[in-house]
Amino acid sequence: MSNNINIGVIGYGYWGPNLVRNFAEIPGTQVKTVSDFKPELLAKVQARYPKIEITTDCRDIFNDPKIDAVAIATPVSTHFDLALAALQAGKHVLVEKPMTVSSEQALRLIEEAEKRNLVLMVDHTFVYTGAVRKMRDLVVTKAIGDIFYYDSVRVNLGLFQHDVNVIWDLAVHDLSIMNYVLPSQPYAVSATGMSHVPGEPENIAYLTLFFESNLIAHIHVNWLAPVKVRRTLIGGSQRMIVYDDLEPSEKVKIYDKGITVNGNNSAESVYQMLIGYRTGDMWSPHLDMTEALRTEGLHFINCIETGDRPITNGQAGLQVVSILEAATQSMKQHGQLVELNSAQVAV
Amino acid sequence: MSNNINIGVIGYGYWGPNLVRNFAEIPGTQVKTVSDFKPELLAKVQARYPKIEITTDCRDIFNDPKIDAVAIATPVSTHFDLALAALQAGKHVLVEKPMTVSSEQALRLIEEAEKRNLVLMVDHTFVYTGAVRKMRDLVVTKAIGDIFYYDSVRVNLGLFQHDVNVIWDLAVHDLSIMNYVLPSQPYAVSATGMSHVPGEPENIAYLTLFFESNLIAHIHVNWLAPVKVRRTLIGGSQRMIVYDDLEPSEKVKIYDKGITVNGNNSAESVYQMLIGYRTGDMWSPHLDMTEALRTEGLHFINCIETGDRPITNGQAGLQVVSILEAATQSMKQHGQLVELNSAQVAV
Amino acid sequence: MSNNINIGVIGYGYWGPNLVRNFAEIPGTQVKTVSDFKPELLAKVQARYPKIEITTDCRDIFNDPKIDAVAIATPVSTHFDLALAALQAGKHVLVEKPMTVSSEQALRLIEEAEKRNLVLMVDHTFVYTGAVRKMRDLVVTKAIGDIFYYDSVRVNLGLFQHDVNVIWDLAVHDLSIMNYVLPSQPYAVSATGMSHVPGEPENIAYLTLFFESNLIAHIHVNWLAPVKVRRTLIGGSQRMIVYDDLEPSEKVKIYDKGITVNGNNSAESVYQMLIGYRTGDMWSPHLDMTEALRTEGLHFINCIETGDRPITNGQAGLQVVSILEAATQSMKQHGQLVELNSAQVAV
Amino acid sequence: MSNNINIGVIGYGYWGPNLVRNFAEIPGTQVKTVSDFKPELLAKVQARYPKIEITTDCRDIFNDPKIDAVAIATPVSTHFDLALAALQAGKHVLVEKPMTVSSEQALRLIEEAEKRNLVLMVDHTFVYTGAVRKMRDLVVTKAIGDIFYYDSVRVNLGLFQHDVNVIWDLAVHDLSIMNYVLPSQPYAVSATGMSHVPGEPENIAYLTLFFESNLIAHIHVNWLAPVKVRRTLIGGSQRMIVYDDLEPSEKVKIYDKGITVNGNNSAESVYQMLIGYRTGDMWSPHLDMTEALRTEGLHFINCIETGDRPITNGQAGLQVVSILEAATQSMKQHGQLVELNSAQVAV
Repeated sequence: MSNNINIGVIGYGYWGPNLVRNFAEIPGTQVKTVSDFKPELLAKVQARYPKIEITTDCRDIFNDPKIDAVAIATPVSTHFDLALAALQAGKHVLVEKPMTVSSEQALRLIEEAEKRNLVLMVDHTFVYTGAVRKMRDLVVTKAIGDIFYYDSVRVNLGLFQHDVNVIWDLAVHDLSIMNYVLPSQPYAVSATGMSHVPGEPENIAYLTLFFESNLIAHIHVNWLAPVKVRRTLIGGSQRMIVYDDLEPSEKVKIYDKGITVNGNNSAESVYQMLIGYRTGDMWSPHLDMTEALRTEGLHFINCIETGDRPITNGQAGLQVVSILEAATQSMKQHGQLVELNSAQVAV
Repeated sequence: MSNNINIGVIGYGYWGPNLVRNFAEIPGTQVKTVSDFKPELLAKVQARYPKIEITTDCRDIFNDPKIDAVAIATPVSTHFDLALAALQAGKHVLVEKPMTVSSEQALRLIEEAEKRNLVLMVDHTFVYTGAVRKMRDLVVTKAIGDIFYYDSVRVNLGLFQHDVNVIWDLAVHDLSIMNYVLPSQPYAVSATGMSHVPGEPENIAYLTLFFESNLIAHIHVNWLAPVKVRRTLIGGSQRMIVYDDLEPSEKVKIYDKGITVNGNNSAESVYQMLIGYRTGDMWSPHLDMTEALRTEGLHFINCIETGDRPITNGQAGLQVVSILEAATQSMKQHGQLVELNSAQVAV
Repeated sequence: MSNNINIGVIGYGYWGPNLVRNFAEIPGTQVKTVSDFKPELLAKVQARYPKIEITTDCRDIFNDPKIDAVAIATPVSTHFDLALAALQAGKHVLVEKPMTVSSEQALRLIEEAEKRNLVLMVDHTFVYTGAVRKMRDLVVTKAIGDIFYYDSVRVNLGLFQHDVNVIWDLAVHDLSIMNYVLPSQPYAVSATGMSHVPGEPENIAYLTLFFESNLIAHIHVNWLAPVKVRRTLIGGSQRMIVYDDLEPSEKVKIYDKGITVNGNNSAESVYQMLIGYRTGDMWSPHLDMTEALRTEGLHFINCIETGDRPITNGQAGLQVVSILEAATQSMKQHGQLVELNSAQVAV
Repeated sequence: MSNNINIGVIGYGYWGPNLVRNFAEIPGTQVKTVSDFKPELLAKVQARYPKIEITTDCRDIFNDPKIDAVAIATPVSTHFDLALAALQAGKHVLVEKPMTVSSEQALRLIEEAEKRNLVLMVDHTFVYTGAVRKMRDLVVTKAIGDIFYYDSVRVNLGLFQHDVNVIWDLAVHDLSIMNYVLPSQPYAVSATGMSHVPGEPENIAYLTLFFESNLIAHIHVNWLAPVKVRRTLIGGSQRMIVYDDLEPSEKVKIYDKGITVNGNNSAESVYQMLIGYRTGDMWSPHLDMTEALRTEGLHFINCIETGDRPITNGQAGLQVVSILEAATQSMKQHGQLVELNSAQVAV
């Protein structure tokens, strides 16, 4: 492979160091420049990676003709301006999730990338874990049967955000996983939530997502929980999955459990027990434990070289942002159903 | 104590044997008669309790002047007629939960009991466990501080009901616990859910309950889960509780965790971190492990003798039924907020 | 099947009621008489099973020509005399574990039963659970490969015994399971332990069992532990088992994990890494959840009718008693190796 | 504080990078030189810490007059020669555990350090964790009462060592914790174990340690287990501790559980139940979560400056090595009791 890709990374706060470390370890790829407006963070870059250039002005990255691609790890409110500038400078873009603060912005970035034939990828990291890819396999191969529900809990104590509510901070993970694993997209959302700090956004929220079929999804996110929970249940007609991201190795368990519906459901038989219960083995497949960000970085580089569309492309980012928008609107209305704009989410 | 109370038990299916066993073991109390329309169940009574009279006609119980009180453990659709007949026959009544199929019926029973000065008690069993009483203590004594949220999950595989949805079957437990533990009552509910068996009621449901304060409650119930979960989180301003009913002994854990909100929230400081995190000890109190139904049975007998109002009286039953009604209505409307009729729930 | 077996049960303390209940539910089998020297326990029999005869004199059972078999659930010090008397009265015998207080006594009972052609069975209950039978299958079919170790922990708080040490009370379970599951018998034991109550037998003990191969077994038993643990690890060359009896459903988990030993182990290569690690799927098979005592009771009845030798026959009981004897001796000598008398344990 | 301590680190394999990182972050302390005979490891030092000098010859460290102290993170067989050379060059020494391959070597190092008035410290890392220090507090303050037993399990799959058995690799952790937490030292050991790879040292082992009182300790270590376990039970007359190092936050739990021994234990009362059971609250204290190696590094530097004797000094290292030696000898003799040479372990 003749790749020799130069990356510029914008933002060296919480996530930026992970991006730099992973791109630095991909053969044929170099992190050429890191920008951050905080000099003390750039000092850390310099101490650890003496060869990487540093700057407090991200325009140095956009203006550098040797830089092929830009990774953006800044607060969500800045994603749109930075990604747009990068695309307009002819750079491929990898942007943190959530992609933007509105679906309108996300659409604009998709258009810009398509017009310029540039890769636009959203950093939905969990999609690149062995656990999530295994679950998608199980769904796609119909090992689970028809999907009945997707139920996720993601709660812990902190870190409260000031600019976005807990849905934008935590549910974004579940929505990106869900959209990747499930065979269809939701058409509407009902959400509830509450703020417990005056003047701050909601710190606890519950989302229900409706689909055209009898599939239902639910996500519970909470910044104010005494224990950390990262658990998803996926119920299917053939089998059911428990995905616990806190398990050190057996993160995905598949239960050969379910119901069997017998006979007709006529008026006479309504009080007869029509439903049988099936309980079989449980199975926990060995998972690829490669760091997700490495798999994702390789995929990004590969898309740049081949022109392939990334798995977590702009449309995937837009779908998530659309749900976040609608959920926030529904939450303000105490659970009022809000339809997702199907025009927006069309691929 | 000079009590000598005779009990008639109607229904010897799943729960009836527990009622008979517990009343049989209370000194000064006798189960005089058990009725069930299935002779094979009555044969079990006879084999185990040769001295108890049996009948397939519950009117034998109503008409027996020696019977002081009636315990009703039949399907919910029959509760109203049986309880009303018992009250009209001058018997004290202990009725299974949910109390009735409508708040209108519940109100009617409350009126009848008050008019006749009879004890009307609903079998909200969990209220009489050591774990739930301990949680109420922690809330009442303000050890938890202001209550921010109540979040409960009650899921497992089976048993599907044909006549009621999963809310009436499972959430009834959570609502009875919640109403006992929390210091205030909800004013509205938003619920979502789905049926995965054509023609059958919803087997998965999510309820959000709103209160006048910033307290929010949420209940997740599911008949179609691969694993059994019975877990409640209660978040407060001072401490937080995890109540896991499947733990053999440490069912209640109290976490000295939370947030501290510092300083003003002015426009300038909006990007400063105003919120601090507090993590201290965890503590799991020793719980009274007396069987809940024994504590409850003693309380029922005591109320009969003293004329005291039971903890889980008709009003408590009505409050739960009102929420079940409203939640079912909201669920049909995909999460539309439904207000609870405050007139109904007034004591 | 034309069986019509009458059982006499001696001892109605902790375990006797379970024996009576299970035999009472086996078609064609009746519990004819229960004896216990405590009248208050016999009153419980009468209240629950009005048709069963009661007596404070167990000779009434031995002398009853209609009684075919005797189940003995009394303290271990009485097992020998009662079992011998029952055999001499021509009754088949099911005796609680440990079979006797010495291997000499156990041998004597075996001889008596063989001479009279009677069934002599020891109540090694765990052998009849779905979990233990599944583990034996996995070992017998070589799914686990060669067995490397058997490691069991059985600890909790209470109940301290006065007449036997913790090995006789708790390790007896592990030894009976181990002897059934493993393909060979140990030849020697090293045990250590301690008493923490002056004048009382050891309440904590550790046993190591040696086999002719490189198989090693270890059992940890403790009456004074803050938490209850019931966990066995079985390591094999192909797979490894974790058996946790406290898990409600997934009691047996099979790990496709292990090592692979590569190349020669010559002097030059000694510092090279010869050992590879293999990590594959985990699998938890669905288990037969029939109550062990029911399966065992059916097996006892079947052996009486067919003359088959029981799985947990006198020899199995003797093997366990021989190890208990040797372990107690080793424990007094601070771990000194004690060989098991191979003459005694020969079948 | 006027400290300005220069450190040389020998060995940059598994543990060396942790030492370098922690010393680099202690104010007033610098890692001046790192040596390793593998150039590829030194390249990693250079990439990450451009200012640190590198060398393949550790004598460059001994001969550097600006270096005050040496940290040794090499295979155990090299500890003695390296530590001795460092002491003879006048350097303070921090050496990995186990301190040496024999108690004779350990004694020699202690003498050398005392003669030269240099700090000799052994890297018993766990002693510097919040969890272990909390347990020592609980023991020292008698919150646990008299200590009855110390029981530890440390098992997982891999990494097999070729030059030392599993006791030297894993039990060294438990012994260093035990010696720090318990109020007295063992006088003898009985150990058993087995190798499952021909020509390789034992990969599974069980140690029982005897003390002058009725305290007993047991350690189970295993390189060939399907699951990772890191769990210690400490039983006392007043309370009991469960220490689970795999718990993310509640590593130490204190159970207010135990027995009470009532009345005399005369011959007449031997069959009466003299022992009562006490079950109270469970409590999990908040722990200092500072990285142990940071606390340890600060302690090492402080001892150099003040001349204080380290907590994990040469004597502590010697005590552990003495037990490892004796346990290995006992294991070869199938559990034969081996006394610990009290002369050697005297302080």
